[in-house]
Amino acid sequence: MLNELFTPSVQHALDIVGIFVFAISGALLAVRKNFDVFGIAVLAEVTALGGGLFRDLIIGAVPPAAFTDLGYFLTPLLAAGLVFFLHPHVERIQVAVNVFDAAGLGLFCVAGTVKAYDYGLGLTASAALGLATAVGGGVLRDVLANETPSLLRWDRDLYAVPAIVGAAMIVLCIRFDALNAFTSGTAVITAFVLRLLAMRFHWRAPRAYNRSSATAEESSAAT
Amino acid sequence: MLNELFTPSVQHALDIVGIFVFAISGALLAVRKNFDVFGIAVLAEVTALGGGLFRDLIIGAVPPAAFTDLGYFLTPLLAAGLVFFLHPHVERIQVAVNVFDAAGLGLFCVAGTVKAYDYGLGLTASAALGLATAVGGGVLRDVLANETPSLLRWDRDLYAVPAIVGAAMIVLCIRFDALNAFTSGTAVITAFVLRLLAMRFHWRAPRAYNRSSATAEESSAAT
Amino acid sequence: MLNELFTPSVQHALDIVGIFVFAISGALLAVRKNFDVFGIAVLAEVTALGGGLFRDLIIGAVPPAAFTDLGYFLTPLLAAGLVFFLHPHVERIQVAVNVFDAAGLGLFCVAGTVKAYDYGLGLTASAALGLATAVGGGVLRDVLANETPSLLRWDRDLYAVPAIVGAAMIVLCIRFDALNAFTSGTAVITAFVLRLLAMRFHWRAPRAYNRSSATAEESSAAT
Repeated sequence: MLNELFTPSVQHALDIVGIFVFAISGALLAVRKNFDVFGIAVLAEVTALGGGLFRDLIIGAVPPAAFTDLGYFLTPLLAAGLVFFLHPHVERIQVAVNVFDAAGLGLFCVAGTVKAYDYGLGLTASAALGLATAVGGGVLRDVLANETPSLLRWDRDLYAVPAIVGAAMIVLCIRFDALNAFTSGTAVITAFVLRLLAMRFHWRAPRAYNRSSATAEESSAAT
Repeated sequence: MLNELFTPSVQHALDIVGIFVFAISGALLAVRKNFDVFGIAVLAEVTALGGGLFRDLIIGAVPPAAFTDLGYFLTPLLAAGLVFFLHPHVERIQVAVNVFDAAGLGLFCVAGTVKAYDYGLGLTASAALGLATAVGGGVLRDVLANETPSLLRWDRDLYAVPAIVGAAMIVLCIRFDALNAFTSGTAVITAFVLRLLAMRFHWRAPRAYNRSSATAEESSAAT
Repeated sequence: MLNELFTPSVQHALDIVGIFVFAISGALLAVRKNFDVFGIAVLAEVTALGGGLFRDLIIGAVPPAAFTDLGYFLTPLLAAGLVFFLHPHVERIQVAVNVFDAAGLGLFCVAGTVKAYDYGLGLTASAALGLATAVGGGVLRDVLANETPSLLRWDRDLYAVPAIVGAAMIVLCIRFDALNAFTSGTAVITAFVLRLLAMRFHWRAPRAYNRSSATAEESSAAT
């Protein structure tokens, strides 16, 4: 089985870490949107589990892990509780949150790609689903909060590219029969570091050719 | 089978009632958003069937009941038709609609929890999915109407808590082997009455600690 | 098998055409919303594949065709690339895009209805799912772009009705055992022509009875 790259307990611990940091980002957005305590909990759950839920529905792994593993369900509630009581402190450590979120991105794009391939998808589809696993929760978070998904906006630092690189490294490893704990760990770390660099140097993706910045500013003001 | 708490015909009649009242709430929002007749029908369908559809996808009950039971599909269209022709009258009886919506909330949280457990989910996951069944349609309704889901907003009377209480009562009954028509009826009525009280006395959930009301007003004005 | 109405290669070619034109419409909206190149690609994929993905999840055809057929996945990326480099030209040929989109609508409502019936849904449910296949991608596109779905708005030319007519023709053909390449081709063309006429003559669906146009204008200004 491909998905036993790491020992099960290590894999599970990594999943819980990824879920936790994504939940923190959902809960913080809920506080900024002035939602009540249930809104904070819902947004934490959706952000943390949404990407994996989508992947599991697509590959037919029902009921999804989010509903069979109690730890997956309770971790976002813990994150929501922390944000609820400590959010001024959590916001102050936004840098730390961003670092953890980058770690979650790396972990989820790799875990999602491996699981999709395990369930029989092709290499390209596995990479696409790995990307969807990594970014899906954040998109759902923004949709529920009635915001334009930050994944899509040009004025946000690169988020998809690190996950695409990580997922692509995994499918190359599978293709050349070189997938093991070391190579997949390298893919996680590559995605993680790329995301950190994108935030540090504000790397951004281009918009459509011939788009004047004047129009751009109007549009972003209007949205 | 747990889901034969009531005779099948009683269960089906209760489902149809819940679907009808949720559809009314979706259709009324569509009228307020100035959607056309198809928008009214779509929002009625989505509000009434969205929560159950999500539950059925999660537990792998495909095709979902919404697509196999013609009554489930046609009831929202009837509700949409009524709102289309009678909406000034329906709005005047908003109080009645709210009462019926509360009844739908109670019925769906109980029915959703029972069905999820029947399909093999654990107790906590069953309660979570019961809650999702009860509130999912309303969240989808608000997302499609491009509004911040009222479930998440602090300035709305408690909606999740009654459903959580109802679902929790059911899983306690299952745990202590006491689930029957009487106890599950009690759970439905408890959720129903709690929601009525929340509306009557404007019970609200707290927002995050240390959040000034001034900021709150700004934020809600901005959204 | 019902779904072998056309030879497989013809059916596949028609699917690809439908996916391509829907992807163009998604990519163009992304450019108008000022999204970056990844936002353009994501919106192209979602618009082109969202409706079919929803249908496949409902009928239990997992993994969905969108993740098993590489052509389905790569076509939207091609469309996104074209829009990215050529969008001023694409916008100039908006009329052509609208014509292709109408063709996609006709193809998808027919293909969706047939596939749903093949998987055992009833006639009404098959037609409903055919409609959802045809319009689902566009609704997802608008939700992700944080816009009110144009499907629901009264100030848009009829979009659902042509798809409903096409889907209804198919279920009538199935009911009377007259489904073949000719009748289903007729259904595609009927939906296609109805949509063209709706755009040409600005056919619109009525809003709820007794709604003054003054209120209508206020509301649409507010949204």
